[in-house]
Amino acid sequence: MPHLVILYTPNIDRPTDQGGLNMTALCRLLCDAMLSVRDEQNRQVFPTGGTRVLAYPAAHFAVADGGVAGKAAGKGSDYAFVYMNVRMAKGRSALVHQRVGEALQACVKTHFAEQLAARPIGITVQVDEGHEVFDAKISTLHPLFNPA
Amino acid sequence: MPHLVILYTPNIDRPTDQGGLNMTALCRLLCDAMLSVRDEQNRQVFPTGGTRVLAYPAAHFAVADGGVAGKAAGKGSDYAFVYMNVRMAKGRSALVHQRVGEALQACVKTHFAEQLAARPIGITVQVDEGHEVFDAKISTLHPLFNPA
Amino acid sequence: MPHLVILYTPNIDRPTDQGGLNMTALCRLLCDAMLSVRDEQNRQVFPTGGTRVLAYPAAHFAVADGGVAGKAAGKGSDYAFVYMNVRMAKGRSALVHQRVGEALQACVKTHFAEQLAARPIGITVQVDEGHEVFDAKISTLHPLFNPA
Repeated sequence: MPHLVILYTPNIDRPTDQGGLNMTALCRLLCDAMLSVRDEQNRQVFPTGGTRVLAYPAAHFAVADGGVAGKAAGKGSDYAFVYMNVRMAKGRSALVHQRVGEALQACVKTHFAEQLAARPIGITVQVDEGHEVFDAKISTLHPLFNPA
Repeated sequence: MPHLVILYTPNIDRPTDQGGLNMTALCRLLCDAMLSVRDEQNRQVFPTGGTRVLAYPAAHFAVADGGVAGKAAGKGSDYAFVYMNVRMAKGRSALVHQRVGEALQACVKTHFAEQLAARPIGITVQVDEGHEVFDAKISTLHPLFNPA
Repeated sequence: MPHLVILYTPNIDRPTDQGGLNMTALCRLLCDAMLSVRDEQNRQVFPTGGTRVLAYPAAHFAVADGGVAGKAAGKGSDYAFVYMNVRMAKGRSALVHQRVGEALQACVKTHFAEQLAARPIGITVQVDEGHEVFDAKISTLHPLFNPA
């Protein structure tokens, strides 16, 4: 933990010269945004070796009224939607939750500016605290960043 | 919010003349079912511009005993599974939760009737209340339905 | 319920002779591991007809520092990540939760041994109790295992 999972409509995934967005590059930027978050003692909140972003375009989808209102408003019927959900370990302060959300939100506002201007699109950024009843981590990635 | 995410085995995704189901059409019907739900004051529960359905066939899967019992019973070993999860904002009444679930369940019963008759298939419809610790929405879709 | 959903980086999905892992076979093994769990009265915890595993490689992703530390350490920059999440019905004992997690963890340790040795990879196994506000199941699969 933590991870950020992005569920989105596949009409985002076009080549950038056709109005799409480079989602692989965005994953990297969002991962960097997560790694940049600091707590009240100015310590990095998320361990580098445990931070990851996974993005999933839907195979099938439906959004809002399907395009009627957008077409009528001259904004097009090709609605898009992006849902970003961070799941982080429980026990962090409300301030840390806020900082995590705001770091992602700032990244989203910058990198979706063109999409937001060009088409009807809804983007949601949420942070969840995990409340798992079992938790195990097996890793050869963490040791790269936390040498014994 | 809300969204409905559908996770399912890809053996649902065949052409309809080969026993498959049109999942894109089903997403639209489920979205309409969500938009049709009314609260105790007869108001639409979900804002049109914030309602969406995303469906994901799994790349790999395993279900139950893998087909042994189905084959033995003459129902075939090609088990299918569909998991539907609504995540909606917290604070709604138990009656509204019930109505949302029942609207989706009714839609499922109608549109999966052939699948249910033709093969062993399990379908689950669940509604979760989100308990996020951070929530931000950035949208050029909402304003189409809520002009200033 | 229950289901196990696996979200992972697609660099796991190579042919096995190229250092990949057979994810379809792993889904079957994990499903069997779930079915093998017994409660305090030695009863099978999960109903056979309601147990399933769905695995999803991400279309886009970012992990940790993107490969810098792994390359510097001579372990390669091709980081992988696997997140396994069980969602099971609420009301089970803490011991049952522990047994479910440990059964999956044991399966993971065995079947990811080569991956763990060959590359930087992080694997997380978590078990969640569902707290849904609506729950409906429609099934022609369950009856195969629970004849009336």
